[in-house]
Amino acid sequence: MRTGRLEAFSDGVIAIIITIMVLEMKVPRGGSLNDLRPVLPVFLSYVLSFVYVGIYWNNHHHMLHATTAVTGAMLWANLHLLFWLSLFPFATGWMGENNFAALPTALYGVVLLMAAIAYYLLQQAIIRAQGPDSILKKAVGRDWKGRLSPVLYIAAIVSTLVSSWIAETILVAAALIWLIPDRRIEKVLPRKGA
Amino acid sequence: MRTGRLEAFSDGVIAIIITIMVLEMKVPRGGSLNDLRPVLPVFLSYVLSFVYVGIYWNNHHHMLHATTAVTGAMLWANLHLLFWLSLFPFATGWMGENNFAALPTALYGVVLLMAAIAYYLLQQAIIRAQGPDSILKKAVGRDWKGRLSPVLYIAAIVSTLVSSWIAETILVAAALIWLIPDRRIEKVLPRKGA
Amino acid sequence: MRTGRLEAFSDGVIAIIITIMVLEMKVPRGGSLNDLRPVLPVFLSYVLSFVYVGIYWNNHHHMLHATTAVTGAMLWANLHLLFWLSLFPFATGWMGENNFAALPTALYGVVLLMAAIAYYLLQQAIIRAQGPDSILKKAVGRDWKGRLSPVLYIAAIVSTLVSSWIAETILVAAALIWLIPDRRIEKVLPRKGA
Amino acid sequence: MRTGRLEAFSDGVIAIIITIMVLEMKVPRGGSLNDLRPVLPVFLSYVLSFVYVGIYWNNHHHMLHATTAVTGAMLWANLHLLFWLSLFPFATGWMGENNFAALPTALYGVVLLMAAIAYYLLQQAIIRAQGPDSILKKAVGRDWKGRLSPVLYIAAIVSTLVSSWIAETILVAAALIWLIPDRRIEKVLPRKGA
Repeated sequence: MRTGRLEAFSDGVIAIIITIMVLEMKVPRGGSLNDLRPVLPVFLSYVLSFVYVGIYWNNHHHMLHATTAVTGAMLWANLHLLFWLSLFPFATGWMGENNFAALPTALYGVVLLMAAIAYYLLQQAIIRAQGPDSILKKAVGRDWKGRLSPVLYIAAIVSTLVSSWIAETILVAAALIWLIPDRRIEKVLPRKGA
Repeated sequence: MRTGRLEAFSDGVIAIIITIMVLEMKVPRGGSLNDLRPVLPVFLSYVLSFVYVGIYWNNHHHMLHATTAVTGAMLWANLHLLFWLSLFPFATGWMGENNFAALPTALYGVVLLMAAIAYYLLQQAIIRAQGPDSILKKAVGRDWKGRLSPVLYIAAIVSTLVSSWIAETILVAAALIWLIPDRRIEKVLPRKGA
Repeated sequence: MRTGRLEAFSDGVIAIIITIMVLEMKVPRGGSLNDLRPVLPVFLSYVLSFVYVGIYWNNHHHMLHATTAVTGAMLWANLHLLFWLSLFPFATGWMGENNFAALPTALYGVVLLMAAIAYYLLQQAIIRAQGPDSILKKAVGRDWKGRLSPVLYIAAIVSTLVSSWIAETILVAAALIWLIPDRRIEKVLPRKGA
Repeated sequence: MRTGRLEAFSDGVIAIIITIMVLEMKVPRGGSLNDLRPVLPVFLSYVLSFVYVGIYWNNHHHMLHATTAVTGAMLWANLHLLFWLSLFPFATGWMGENNFAALPTALYGVVLLMAAIAYYLLQQAIIRAQGPDSILKKAVGRDWKGRLSPVLYIAAIVSTLVSSWIAETILVAAALIWLIPDRRIEKVLPRKGA
């Protein structure tokens, strides 16, 4: 199997996840500012998750860009990643509707952590399949963002015991470091006709 | 990255947004005409939003048609546009369920305004990347529709202070000017194999 | 613009419509057969709509198969068709939840009728753009199914005044005539690489 | 028609089904562990269905990989398969929300059984169209998994009369046998440019 199929399916699932999350912002009954106020935390959690899913979509493409053939292991590693991403709407909604309370924030961190681990497993599955000259391995390099993120997610989960606002700050920071342009894979790869 | 990937993902998200909006039209309990009546304003707001999302899909394609390579800046500018479009179902539902009340109509105008700004930023990101001979810049030309729209959205937002029906009239008019055939980009571009 | 883009977007919207309809089958609270019973009419209306959307998807492809270039008129005629198809989940849910009562069944017939008209308008837009040697015109031929369907929908709408079961029988029959294999377009067209 | 179109549409529907299932996990009101507890059975049923839909997506691709031309019979056989897959969110939600009670578990088994039969019918439609030298027939071989699965689903349905936990165990086992790597089709087919 080529990567086209895998990319198209992953794109579809990610596009649906990113759009379905907005359904957690329930339309309030009344039309006043007071009616809109409870939606604010759900909106803020939606913004954070939108950025995270955007980052995953972005990174996922760069990764598949450095991949040619798809093995059975990659396929299931990819479905495993999509599974954790599919829990974003639930975790986002629970955190937002409970005004960033400790436990929902911790669960949100756990989903982020599991997605990061799933992403890493997929990356390893591709590198293993590509063998010693893996172009993805070269492209990923030391992968400081990929290594730092899970540490930050764990820090956020633990810090909910003290204050969920510390946790939120860490989760926002962990998203921001991914927004810094990252041309690792683009640097290594010349071009690919797809 | 080529534009194909970006187009496919944007298409997916826009297709889901346009379809998910219809879920705000809740199926009424009873089967009489009286039960159906409260759905009417939601239906009307759905029609307006369907046209707006259709316009965005249309314009988005013409724009990417005049684009070859995708930079990191374009990618995030595109996600930023999709973010504001993803708020259409919520803003549409709130406006419709509150019978076009002032504040929900103003919020709807704000979402339209932010989407227009996001669209403009994406357009600028592409033009900047294409350099002095930008084919998109030539294609866009004086862009009177793109310049007039935000002015109309602001006028609509302000006019909700007086009457939300004036605001709705402006928003409908702002949609209609986009339905006038616009072959700017088609004129400049000869053809492109995709 | 080529047809690829239009097909992909239409496919996306139709795939979402067909899947979103199932959400109108609300999961009942209890786990007994009695709890499941009220779902039965919604399930039956879902089956009917699934077949109808499947027919539209099928016909839509055959039609675009006989089309090369996309004009602005086609694009809006296509969005117009997708608009009426997007009302299927609502009309299906209303009819099913009200146990095929007269008015919801009539509305369902109206949505089917409008979709059929929209389909016809799209067909005409393509034939007009193709000029006197239109390959689609030849492929469509006398189009007896396309001519009979709206008549049946109107008959179904009117017959709800007498009995909604007559109406349902007509709507089921109108779907069944489309399931008869129809190789008109395949006969005229030799092949097309897409 | 080529398989590309059919694959893209099926991918879209399957991607939406797999993502929409997660909406059955309703976000609980409160933010405590007690509020989260009732979600657990729904989550577990979601995991099982996610794996099943993943298996179907995987097998569906391998099957279409061994297919070139699409006939009308295949097209409707494929829609028939998608119909039963589209009932997964409902069956999953009903089983999960009723804590794996007997009847919902039996219905879940029935949906699995019908999907398996629909898959088999699609496979036969392809093999019939390919004629005596069917590459798919060779690829499928003795198809022990495809033959065992329906037997297991029936065993699970019947065993709900005794204990729904026996049924769940059988359904989990029936999923696990599909996760064993299966390179039948890859072995027969050399490569295909898509």
